[in-house]
Amino acid sequence: MNPLRDKRDRRMPRIAGPCGVVIFGVTGDLSRKKLMPAIYDLANRGLLPPSFALVGFARRDWADEDFGQVVYEAVKQHARTPFRQEVWDRLAEGFRFVQGTFDDDAAFARLAETLEKLDAERGTGGNHAFYLSIPPKAFQQVCEQLQKSGLARPQDGRWSRVVIEKPFGHDLESARELNAVVNSVFPEESVFRIDHYLGKETVQNILALRFANELFEPVWNNNYVDHVQITMAEDIGLGGRAGYYDGVGAARDVIQNHLLQLLALTAMEEPVNFGPHELQTEKIKVLSATRLVHPLDKTTARGQYAAGWQGSEKVVGLLDEEGFANDSTTETYAAITLEVDTRRWAGVPFFLRTGKRLARRVTEIALVFKRAPHLPFDKTMTEELGENALVIRVQPDEGITMRFGSKVPGSQMEVRDVNMDFSYGSAFAEDSPEAYERLILDVLLGEPSLFPVNREVELSWQILDPVLEFWASQGRPEPYPAGTWGPPSADEMLRRVGREWRRP
Amino acid sequence: MNPLRDKRDRRMPRIAGPCGVVIFGVTGDLSRKKLMPAIYDLANRGLLPPSFALVGFARRDWADEDFGQVVYEAVKQHARTPFRQEVWDRLAEGFRFVQGTFDDDAAFARLAETLEKLDAERGTGGNHAFYLSIPPKAFQQVCEQLQKSGLARPQDGRWSRVVIEKPFGHDLESARELNAVVNSVFPEESVFRIDHYLGKETVQNILALRFANELFEPVWNNNYVDHVQITMAEDIGLGGRAGYYDGVGAARDVIQNHLLQLLALTAMEEPVNFGPHELQTEKIKVLSATRLVHPLDKTTARGQYAAGWQGSEKVVGLLDEEGFANDSTTETYAAITLEVDTRRWAGVPFFLRTGKRLARRVTEIALVFKRAPHLPFDKTMTEELGENALVIRVQPDEGITMRFGSKVPGSQMEVRDVNMDFSYGSAFAEDSPEAYERLILDVLLGEPSLFPVNREVELSWQILDPVLEFWASQGRPEPYPAGTWGPPSADEMLRRVGREWRRP
Repeated sequence: MNPLRDKRDRRMPRIAGPCGVVIFGVTGDLSRKKLMPAIYDLANRGLLPPSFALVGFARRDWADEDFGQVVYEAVKQHARTPFRQEVWDRLAEGFRFVQGTFDDDAAFARLAETLEKLDAERGTGGNHAFYLSIPPKAFQQVCEQLQKSGLARPQDGRWSRVVIEKPFGHDLESARELNAVVNSVFPEESVFRIDHYLGKETVQNILALRFANELFEPVWNNNYVDHVQITMAEDIGLGGRAGYYDGVGAARDVIQNHLLQLLALTAMEEPVNFGPHELQTEKIKVLSATRLVHPLDKTTARGQYAAGWQGSEKVVGLLDEEGFANDSTTETYAAITLEVDTRRWAGVPFFLRTGKRLARRVTEIALVFKRAPHLPFDKTMTEELGENALVIRVQPDEGITMRFGSKVPGSQMEVRDVNMDFSYGSAFAEDSPEAYERLILDVLLGEPSLFPVNREVELSWQILDPVLEFWASQGRPEPYPAGTWGPPSADEMLRRVGREWRRP
Repeated sequence: MNPLRDKRDRRMPRIAGPCGVVIFGVTGDLSRKKLMPAIYDLANRGLLPPSFALVGFARRDWADEDFGQVVYEAVKQHARTPFRQEVWDRLAEGFRFVQGTFDDDAAFARLAETLEKLDAERGTGGNHAFYLSIPPKAFQQVCEQLQKSGLARPQDGRWSRVVIEKPFGHDLESARELNAVVNSVFPEESVFRIDHYLGKETVQNILALRFANELFEPVWNNNYVDHVQITMAEDIGLGGRAGYYDGVGAARDVIQNHLLQLLALTAMEEPVNFGPHELQTEKIKVLSATRLVHPLDKTTARGQYAAGWQGSEKVVGLLDEEGFANDSTTETYAAITLEVDTRRWAGVPFFLRTGKRLARRVTEIALVFKRAPHLPFDKTMTEELGENALVIRVQPDEGITMRFGSKVPGSQMEVRDVNMDFSYGSAFAEDSPEAYERLILDVLLGEPSLFPVNREVELSWQILDPVLEFWASQGRPEPYPAGTWGPPSADEMLRRVGREWRRP
């Protein structure tokens, strides 16, 4: 038995069948920090088949051994499970490197040859996942090369899957183009779009929480919920990330994918079951009903961090970060107001916000409830009573908090807010798989539930496009000092409708 | 400012006006362990007026100083707040002792004289609370003596209140007689019946929890609740308490008062406000709708503890406890099934149980919810999912627990029960007043909300009488080993209707 498995766990884990993973852009950060360690951790947990291969494709002039050394260092540095020599040795036997550029037909021929040899030597069975850890503008070329070399559509029950990372386009139009490119080579069921937020345990737990229980669903609607706040706050800045971030901004980087997916899981109706089609049906349905609240100058806010203090560290503003033009209009903070036009949610605003260099790193979904319709208490006794809230803490400190009113000890019937708390980490002995582990395994298992389909991607852009256009016409975003909770206009945006952002 | 007050507390405490307390049965256990310490603690917290007097009445041949010494020792041993000489000195100046028996007219004349002198010397203003810490059979005599001596119904806006302790009778008939005796002297609004459970913070918090919040009330009904369990389990035995307990038993001792009051607070409708009349109205209404489920041989259980182990200590059975006849049929465990015939609760069984020498000391109210009507999960993934529950932990470890299903970390959608927890002690810096402190202060303030009125007492007996009669016809209760959770018939009683007792 695998020593990393919980002994009390009677479930049989799902183990991937024979296959190989090809990573394009294998020299990049994502590959070294996330993909390589995740693959090792999966192997270490016994979730990869003995017949497994990992192939790197890049411009570098590496031999297989050089590639192996890079993986080794990535694993040593970033893997979450202990290093075990025998697991490593077995895994490393399946490492190959193919040198080439995306326009080099011969390189792809070598890739096809390498994979064929691996099928023979390692028994990978002709099943391949192609991980495009590369800029979207290169997708077309790589997809076409895979098609030409016969790798995209294998025969005889073998599978070929493509994994792509955000950004899934820049707006609705470019997303449609991108989807058309990918789908012209890979059928939609072979396309796995990674939104690593969906690989997080706490995100999947939204569904368990809502639908495995009798307690929450009865109040999960506009009879009881006043509004919903979905927050992804980061304390880091954008030093060194200008190439990716400048001209993209917070809304495209985070709201279009992570936050709208969190909204979909929070707001969707109960699916018939948790099959991928049934889940997608509900997510697509709720995203189709989601739209911006107007006028956008009052219901949205954007900002750009200026110099400030992050804890005890003095940090520079975005315009002084390396690589950003000193008149960059890229927003590092974005907040929008959405409505979900369903019977369940009509009238309940959904406030989404994200930002860099904010006061704290925290991602959460908060359902804020109406005040009880009748308070049999003296007015003075409820002065410190806020609204009830149910907060799903996505990260860090994963768990669930319920805020409610409780009697203050003493001879009067005074009530004050208190928190009831559930912590994921202390409730389960089981180790939570890292999001990339979970998602890579799902790709190899052909389990698409946690991957947004192109319709979801397009709907998300359709929701977001008007605000992106509006902002583009508005000049510079409002500056906010690093280490705060964003620009004043974001506070004003909520105050205007009688609400207040949580300060988690 | 009083050093025991929380500095952050901006509320003005309610302080009693000038008055005196007379304790009959002042040499008893309750007086020394609870009443005297509570009075000192109230004084120490600054909640008693400077014009306060404490008068003991008993047969002993004591001078005021002897009485003062007894109070001093009780305070030193049992008070919860630190001893402060200046508080003690001021309080002790108001101590008096009146020697006499209940049939001694002259003694009551001396009592009246003493109280009059105290009014003059201490400024107690002619306001008196008479605490009858004596057996119920002496109530009539004492009440009549108080009437004769003119102490029961003072004039000119002065007040006179009588405080009585359970048992409030032995059955409906005797309770009516007792109420008639007391009410013939004291009008009902001057009668304060102590059920010290109602003085507990966690019990009062039931009302705050239900009615200050939006989250709980929507599921607080028969659409969502499967059944309710109200438990008061004690681990102690009855050594030394035969005089009080033999012939009384668990149902009369605990269910008739504490548990039915907990049921009333749990099941009642929302009051217009928390005024005493409004609260009583709702409690009376719900108790009027509450009745035993028949047939009683299947819906009730009773037991008597036999020898066994309490932790590592070997303990004797009831029949070997000093003072109990060796054929005593007194039950030390009682469980009953009730229904509350209101629109909110129709069809929801309320299971009440109490016992001595059980496995653990715990008092709790548990709402156990139905399973979600549709589970979109694979069957095998919900095998370890129980019913949702909301548990109000009355004592010890006061707080609230919610049990619900959460995803088990891993690549499958498995759900398992977890607990979300709120602890009263760690949420509030404020010290919880002890139940007797709270209740004595309320008597002096004339605040009757937490005291059951005679209609409630009579309704409770009306609910319980049929099972007491049934049990009286059934011979010996079923023995159960000390340190267990009661007799097998109690488990059978729930199994028969597809439920199971919690093992808290």
